[in-house]
Amino acid sequence: MTDRAHPEPRSAYRWFLPITTRWMDNDVFGHVNNVQYYSFIDTTVCSYLVETGLFHPTTGGLMAVVAESGCSYFSSVAYPDALTGALRIDRMGTSSVRYGVGIFREDEDQASAGGFFTHVYLDRATGKPAPLSEDLRTALNGLIA
Amino acid sequence: MTDRAHPEPRSAYRWFLPITTRWMDNDVFGHVNNVQYYSFIDTTVCSYLVETGLFHPTTGGLMAVVAESGCSYFSSVAYPDALTGALRIDRMGTSSVRYGVGIFREDEDQASAGGFFTHVYLDRATGKPAPLSEDLRTALNGLIA
Amino acid sequence: MTDRAHPEPRSAYRWFLPITTRWMDNDVFGHVNNVQYYSFIDTTVCSYLVETGLFHPTTGGLMAVVAESGCSYFSSVAYPDALTGALRIDRMGTSSVRYGVGIFREDEDQASAGGFFTHVYLDRATGKPAPLSEDLRTALNGLIA
Amino acid sequence: MTDRAHPEPRSAYRWFLPITTRWMDNDVFGHVNNVQYYSFIDTTVCSYLVETGLFHPTTGGLMAVVAESGCSYFSSVAYPDALTGALRIDRMGTSSVRYGVGIFREDEDQASAGGFFTHVYLDRATGKPAPLSEDLRTALNGLIA
Repeated sequence: MTDRAHPEPRSAYRWFLPITTRWMDNDVFGHVNNVQYYSFIDTTVCSYLVETGLFHPTTGGLMAVVAESGCSYFSSVAYPDALTGALRIDRMGTSSVRYGVGIFREDEDQASAGGFFTHVYLDRATGKPAPLSEDLRTALNGLIA
Repeated sequence: MTDRAHPEPRSAYRWFLPITTRWMDNDVFGHVNNVQYYSFIDTTVCSYLVETGLFHPTTGGLMAVVAESGCSYFSSVAYPDALTGALRIDRMGTSSVRYGVGIFREDEDQASAGGFFTHVYLDRATGKPAPLSEDLRTALNGLIA
Repeated sequence: MTDRAHPEPRSAYRWFLPITTRWMDNDVFGHVNNVQYYSFIDTTVCSYLVETGLFHPTTGGLMAVVAESGCSYFSSVAYPDALTGALRIDRMGTSSVRYGVGIFREDEDQASAGGFFTHVYLDRATGKPAPLSEDLRTALNGLIA
Repeated sequence: MTDRAHPEPRSAYRWFLPITTRWMDNDVFGHVNNVQYYSFIDTTVCSYLVETGLFHPTTGGLMAVVAESGCSYFSSVAYPDALTGALRIDRMGTSSVRYGVGIFREDEDQASAGGFFTHVYLDRATGKPAPLSEDLRTALNGLIA
């Protein structure tokens, strides 16, 4: 993840989701626990897919499994911060996509964290890797930074 | 909790907080798990206190402990629903407050769930119950429905 | 919940589940956040049903919805405490069950928290309340304290 | 994370922690959500440090921040599975440690997931990177696989 070793600005991302924090996100240090960032990453990817209607986790011919994820933490965020999950496409294969997600605090322009999330798309009936639909591929192409 | 056995409208509450849902809030039934509602309740109470500046969980002369909580579930909510946490004061003692919290789905006017949360306020130095500050008491009086 | 206003001993419960705590269960005060107790309650009830084979959340003719839950907090628990979820039946109707759950810290005999959880059982096909199976009713009768 | 692209056996790890799953860990697919694995990783690292007494998150001269984490998912786990968090040291610098953590399902010998977690140790007073204590370094050397 050396390519994610430095915070990037919002302009490095293409789609944005407001995320509210919760009191219990904070751990004993008064900052959002490192685990919760993955919930923000997970939710940002899923929200893009659901809101655009290009893919639904539980219906349609394709399903998605998470093959790999990761996150670099640059500066802390804390409840009650308002956050933004920022999405882009890092890489796209025939049946897999590596989504890049930045987590931004309030109005800051430098990401507090930079993560990724690799989906492999499977035929829901056979469980075998299956090519992305053309609609999804076209839309995701538009998110390459 | 018989007084909370039926859904109430937004007008039964006095202060409102937008809450975004997360993919992992949904359980195997595709609805927000019953546990997460308490995170919404907890966050609604805490956000009122922090945003008004009347009480801070980790600083100042008073601290608060949760003595009791509860929730009645009327209808399900699910990611990606936008939720509203709605606050009122159910009851106020010398050093304790029972907060009432409704959880509303999208633009619905009937609460999906109605919960409560009882804080006991303690002197941070001695750990003994201590009277609410006058400022806090005055503000909370304004939230009695 | 006045009947749950004082901590009870392990002998007030009938079935026991070991629960490990997680670092992120602790909030800024270094104690398990009030919300997580409901995860322990939820898991204790569900584990009894699944381990005994008397009911499965996602298969079989019946499904269960949570109508109400609540918890009284007596003393704090904290990661890395080993916990025990302790189960009993508080009340049983034709198609509903109020489960009582105590949360015990390490080897302590006084509950750190006492909660409840009311399930309404529904016909999975029609979504209408349906009587508990005789097997389930007989088993739950054995958990009345 | 190419070195973590295939499941490894228990023998590739050096210290083991039992972890119980919770009903709400499962997402809509009936498997533990990808986010929760990081809670298992986080807890495994922290439990080693706390149980050995070599480092405590909130006391002592050093503190630790998470710089980076990641996980490869090989096969699913689900509540009510009993899990094992398995620890080793992947890499050690002057003031940083990359912990490797495998997540094992029930008695299986192939990891269901393989993750890592990089701690940077700081002087608690100055917030500047500080060398690991000799005790901690010696112990962690014993966890190199």
